[in-house]
Amino acid sequence: MSFFKIFKKDGNTSARAGYLYINEKIIPTPVFMPVGTKASVKAVTSEQLYKIGYEIILANLYHLYLQPGIEVIEKAGGLHSFMNWKKSILTDSGGFQVFSLGKIRKVNSDGVEFKSIIDGSYHFFTPADVVKMQCRMGSDVIMVLDECMSYNENYEYTVKSTKRTLKWAEISKKTIDEVNSKQPKIFGIIQGGFIKETRRFCAEAISNIGFDGIAIGGLSVGEDRHLTMDILNYTLDYIDKSKPTYFMGLGDPLGIIDAISYGVDMFDSVMPTRISRNGSAFTTRGKINLKNNKFIMDFTPLDRDCNCYTCTNFTRSYLRHLYKSKEILSSILLSIHNLHFMYNLVNKARKSIIEGSFTVFKEKFKNNYKNNTKV
Amino acid sequence: MSFFKIFKKDGNTSARAGYLYINEKIIPTPVFMPVGTKASVKAVTSEQLYKIGYEIILANLYHLYLQPGIEVIEKAGGLHSFMNWKKSILTDSGGFQVFSLGKIRKVNSDGVEFKSIIDGSYHFFTPADVVKMQCRMGSDVIMVLDECMSYNENYEYTVKSTKRTLKWAEISKKTIDEVNSKQPKIFGIIQGGFIKETRRFCAEAISNIGFDGIAIGGLSVGEDRHLTMDILNYTLDYIDKSKPTYFMGLGDPLGIIDAISYGVDMFDSVMPTRISRNGSAFTTRGKINLKNNKFIMDFTPLDRDCNCYTCTNFTRSYLRHLYKSKEILSSILLSIHNLHFMYNLVNKARKSIIEGSFTVFKEKFKNNYKNNTKV
Repeated sequence: MSFFKIFKKDGNTSARAGYLYINEKIIPTPVFMPVGTKASVKAVTSEQLYKIGYEIILANLYHLYLQPGIEVIEKAGGLHSFMNWKKSILTDSGGFQVFSLGKIRKVNSDGVEFKSIIDGSYHFFTPADVVKMQCRMGSDVIMVLDECMSYNENYEYTVKSTKRTLKWAEISKKTIDEVNSKQPKIFGIIQGGFIKETRRFCAEAISNIGFDGIAIGGLSVGEDRHLTMDILNYTLDYIDKSKPTYFMGLGDPLGIIDAISYGVDMFDSVMPTRISRNGSAFTTRGKINLKNNKFIMDFTPLDRDCNCYTCTNFTRSYLRHLYKSKEILSSILLSIHNLHFMYNLVNKARKSIIEGSFTVFKEKFKNNYKNNTKV
Repeated sequence: MSFFKIFKKDGNTSARAGYLYINEKIIPTPVFMPVGTKASVKAVTSEQLYKIGYEIILANLYHLYLQPGIEVIEKAGGLHSFMNWKKSILTDSGGFQVFSLGKIRKVNSDGVEFKSIIDGSYHFFTPADVVKMQCRMGSDVIMVLDECMSYNENYEYTVKSTKRTLKWAEISKKTIDEVNSKQPKIFGIIQGGFIKETRRFCAEAISNIGFDGIAIGGLSVGEDRHLTMDILNYTLDYIDKSKPTYFMGLGDPLGIIDAISYGVDMFDSVMPTRISRNGSAFTTRGKINLKNNKFIMDFTPLDRDCNCYTCTNFTRSYLRHLYKSKEILSSILLSIHNLHFMYNLVNKARKSIIEGSFTVFKEKFKNNYKNNTKV
């Protein structure tokens, strides 16, 4: 059975509804994947994630390699068993995290050396290591090692780095083809900075390597949203559209809706859980922050159109109190809501694609979200 | 219907099994009450508490008075509605917390002045205020304001303070008798320091005021456990045994089992949730701490005799990883387990009292818990 099947294409945009088939599990797309960097989606239990409806989460090789170590996860019977997650797992290589380390990492043509933020020890990742370790963890979908450039790189470095990322992508594909055990699916990652020439070059080359899916990396790293969307849209013209397309790290609802309209199938972001720890909530009428005094006596739910555990049981007044009192329950209840919101967002988009009403859904959602006067 | 009914007395000890009848709800005793100081039992949802089986939790007037304020809770329709807790709530006056403030509080015969730890403002609590505010919050069981002395007070101060606590107890009872709305139950609190004469004097006087229940306060404040139990046992000889007896703030499993054998019916403590945030877990074979390296590759549950959500789904290895990685889920899963452990402990004790096997249960539990060689 093929890994990805497009079920319905939107008539007016490039949006599409499909399915990923992963180890006898079926995952409808577009899909949002909550991030469980260290084998835990922050502040929620797996039971709460199942209840919302999530079928796939993300974990990070780089973090898990440092703590608890691949050996522990392997001895536990793999990552699913270690964290007792019964659905699918996509692991990121940690390229983005390693390159975020700045001065405490060094890249050369073979791979990247970095210093552990836990004990200061030095480590070296090659593209082949990264594939093999993700296989050892029993990941369902693995990501190649790529070089994630910072926003302001010059032309010369962008070309050099993009070529290196491509070379690593080829090594990664070769490595997984040599793995004899049950092969996970593998995604290549398109880099290329903010220069269209290198983006196109990388998109075409990655598409030709034969990956199961194509990811777009190196965007949403601090640039204007307008530029993100311009580069994204441009890049998508040069990739193999029969493969699932994954925009790494995009977490804002408006951006996700636009990216779906461009044909992106998969998303991940720490945003829903991170903003929860800062007292914020997505609502259909825009983002709100519970620090605001107007919520002191507001005995309505976070979002009156939401039927999550938090919205059906607790008020803004109580949630504000929990946040102001630094209660852990604040992060728990907001995370449940915000994860529910993201799940619903992509699933409503999917439904509208299938029903032929995606453009109407998209405009209505964006208008409600932007004009948050009735919050 | 009377508030408290003794259902079965143990033949060998003073242990008893009974029921509290609170607003058409029935609560079996002995009972352990999780502490939700600021209207949240730390790191768990109300759904998780219901699932364990808890019928009553504790909240604290002092903290809720400061944040979010009684007015917010009153406007929300009372504390049950504010936090959406469908079972019973006992509120503590916060006497213990106010007296813990040390230099930033001043006591006189009318009440206690204290400085807010939130904004530095000054406040004054009288015994009558404390009763009225707990009534405004819609608490099911309220506690009087008492003076909680530190461990090393001299004879003279102990007598003076104990008399003041008694005077306040009388004012509190008078105040609640004047409240015309649906009356909550009210408990008097026995103080008297570590001097038997003042403890006896206070126990007899509090018993004569006509409270619905009798609490023992001012113990477990830093003294040796041996002394705690000596004073507790002595005090219990002079109280009205037809009333439910509540030992405030005792949270260690061995102490609770001993106190049940002396005839105590009610317990509360932050212990199960506090040790959870420190990576510790109660088990039938003693307390363990996940910091210990021996748990790195331990793929067994926290307690092989436990059927809580945590023990049926996760290993010590994973829980240790979560703790070491500072994941919120560590506090969540350990709190669920430790609260389940305490619930089970008092309920097994209750069952054994009813079945006439309390002494056997007690000795077996204590032996297993102390000889934790097989952890």
